Amino acid sequence: MTHLSRLSAVEAARKLAAREISAERYVNACLERIDERERDVRAFAWIDRERALARARELDAGPVLGVLHGLTLGVKDVFDTWDMPTQGGSKAFEGYRPQHDAGCIAYARKVGAIVLGKTVTAELATFPANETRNPLNLAHTPGGSSSGSAAAVADFMVPAATGSQQFGSLIRPAGYCGVVAYKPTYNLIPKRGVWANSDSCDTLGVIARTVPDAALVASGMIEYPGLRAFVDRANDVPAPRIGLCRSYEWDRCDEHMKAAFEGARAALAGAGAKVAEVVLPEGFRGMAEAQKLVSNFEMGRGFSDVVIRFGDRLRKPLYERSVAGLAITGEAYQRAQALGRKCRQLFADALGECDVLLTPAATGEAPKGIDNTGDPIMNGVWSFLHAPCVAVNGGFGPNGLPLAMQVVGRLDDDARTLACAHWVHRHLGR
Amino acid sequence: MTHLSRLSAVEAARKLAAREISAERYVNACLERIDERERDVRAFAWIDRERALARARELDAGPVLGVLHGLTLGVKDVFDTWDMPTQGGSKAFEGYRPQHDAGCIAYARKVGAIVLGKTVTAELATFPANETRNPLNLAHTPGGSSSGSAAAVADFMVPAATGSQQFGSLIRPAGYCGVVAYKPTYNLIPKRGVWANSDSCDTLGVIARTVPDAALVASGMIEYPGLRAFVDRANDVPAPRIGLCRSYEWDRCDEHMKAAFEGARAALAGAGAKVAEVVLPEGFRGMAEAQKLVSNFEMGRGFSDVVIRFGDRLRKPLYERSVAGLAITGEAYQRAQALGRKCRQLFADALGECDVLLTPAATGEAPKGIDNTGDPIMNGVWSFLHAPCVAVNGGFGPNGLPLAMQVVGRLDDDARTLACAHWVHRHLGR
Repeated sequence: MTHLSRLSAVEAARKLAAREISAERYVNACLERIDERERDVRAFAWIDRERALARARELDAGPVLGVLHGLTLGVKDVFDTWDMPTQGGSKAFEGYRPQHDAGCIAYARKVGAIVLGKTVTAELATFPANETRNPLNLAHTPGGSSSGSAAAVADFMVPAATGSQQFGSLIRPAGYCGVVAYKPTYNLIPKRGVWANSDSCDTLGVIARTVPDAALVASGMIEYPGLRAFVDRANDVPAPRIGLCRSYEWDRCDEHMKAAFEGARAALAGAGAKVAEVVLPEGFRGMAEAQKLVSNFEMGRGFSDVVIRFGDRLRKPLYERSVAGLAITGEAYQRAQALGRKCRQLFADALGECDVLLTPAATGEAPKGIDNTGDPIMNGVWSFLHAPCVAVNGGFGPNGLPLAMQVVGRLDDDARTLACAHWVHRHLGR
Repeated sequence: MTHLSRLSAVEAARKLAAREISAERYVNACLERIDERERDVRAFAWIDRERALARARELDAGPVLGVLHGLTLGVKDVFDTWDMPTQGGSKAFEGYRPQHDAGCIAYARKVGAIVLGKTVTAELATFPANETRNPLNLAHTPGGSSSGSAAAVADFMVPAATGSQQFGSLIRPAGYCGVVAYKPTYNLIPKRGVWANSDSCDTLGVIARTVPDAALVASGMIEYPGLRAFVDRANDVPAPRIGLCRSYEWDRCDEHMKAAFEGARAALAGAGAKVAEVVLPEGFRGMAEAQKLVSNFEMGRGFSDVVIRFGDRLRKPLYERSVAGLAITGEAYQRAQALGRKCRQLFADALGECDVLLTPAATGEAPKGIDNTGDPIMNGVWSFLHAPCVAVNGGFGPNGLPLAMQVVGRLDDDARTLACAHWVHRHLGR
């Protein structure tokens, strides 16, 4: 029998709701896996075994609470939790204990989720890396900033974990670790109680091992059953019309990623998808730069308290980037925002007949070393565009590490995007 | 000589920077006014005299820190402050003491602002009213949710105060109290450390007695000097091209507001403005409903922690609305979001040759009684549209209370919107 910690979230949730397995046994299976591996992987900033087990016993003794009943969840350490510290991977927040749960975490618990612990984030969900390693090869980064969430899920410690993305903090680490990330349309998961970096880019999402798993957990966090409607007919999802999009950042990809993208095209076309090349309108050429500008303007100002009162506890590159953000003028910021708005207008039409786009999720495999979480250049445009994105693995590189693709949908078209991403994931066969 | 507490923010800032008046004397003048009136008006949830005076003496002893040097500020009680409680006008947050400043407050302090206290908000910046009264007539509401900010500014207790708007929480109270509110383009003032209600509508802003004052304070909070560029040539701003916009909510205005709007048109045309009727595209017909739907969907989910763990401490109508928000489906929410995006696309063109629109800021005067903060129906569309709005008084109604107009600009066109609003305010002569 499959070790319980290896069950998909959908399968575990089914067994838990049917009382085929107890929540206590399920939590113990996850803890066992953590005991085996956490010393090496270091995915968690905080684990509360006793609380998780107590909650599991409570759930076992009571009625089935909802779609996440008994399911364990890792929570990125920039989501406030009333019962565990939230430290944002930063010395500036050491020992910080918020009094409230982030709204989406409170709701996940209400429908039965068990928060097993807080997952390691790069400092303040930006770029200075913390201690997590890629479970597929401990010498490599898991990516960031949702490093612990991606690593914990990839290593079977939890079936799913929450994350947030400003540049590429959900899609890239999921891609590097060979798992799935779902970054919804901007604002779909409410940000109350989650630390803000850039109001115009920040988006919350879920990392899991399959698309149905990510859809299940996200749908539970915000009471949106439509997101997981495809799950019950997951193997009957019709072949999607896929736009192959090299994007204006294509040249930043290495040869292995480029080859994997061509391989994915062939595999998907072979499986019956209608594929077409999609070239984004000219305006998109400036989007990567505009996204950086908007993000850094907002971060420079939004981080003021941390910089002013705790600046000496921030790692130097983060301190410097925050201060540098203040030099971006309001005029430049508003011009960049205007470009973002314009591209959002053009995007739906740019897809033409296609349901979704397929585009690389990263420039290549996870880089060696754990001091650098890799380059988010393939993600920033989609973050700023506010489009739903799903990372799925698309092959393996010279180090045997994943080369991930992302499926990008129209804004507000999350349910279709997830269904298409699932089809893509199945037919890429990874 | 004008009592110091009656100086405009621009004038006070000039005198403070020139050391013509000391910050200590200025703070004392504000405190004196508060002593005179606060028992009746009840604008503040918290005042820290000693800390404000100590900070003033510090500022007097040191160099001029920035554009807000020595200026007193009221801070709406949903903006976190590390040195004062933040209670959100709710029993659910009684005694809550955040450990950090909201980013924009930290930055305002960095450039010299003195936070005099926290201003009363309707419960959780929504609709159940708290104790503040309209200083122009104590039997009437000051509006909400930024009730204390509007009242404190209108009553000369502080020259400016911060606020936030989801439905109409900046524009309406400022309008009811006869002062100015500036609601910037969505996301311009970073929300880090400010309590979220609806990520897609929430916008931070400033209440002050003149448009230059509001521009000065906002520009200081986010290091955006361009916003206040018009202030030095404020009397030379050319006559704007103004679109008169009755909006699809016009019928909700009472006869006095309708008459004031016609009066404003005549006054502005007489003063040299080019005025034209602007009818918004058909899609805007659904925007008020879409805004409610998006707001309530996001609030229902975002408030989960408060509702689940502290629901018995919320006032019943707020509890009920939060729970009701959960019944709004994801599909309906995403359709409403799609309408919002579409109208944002159409809006710039809808203005045609006009620089800005003029439209009623409320349905009429501030209603009698303090249990109800009035109707935000004239504001929700503009909140959801993400457009910059400035409330300015446009006349007086049968109770001698203000009938306010709002000047609405194109997205990302804040500097021009402020300059035009100043012209409008001057020529409405109120």
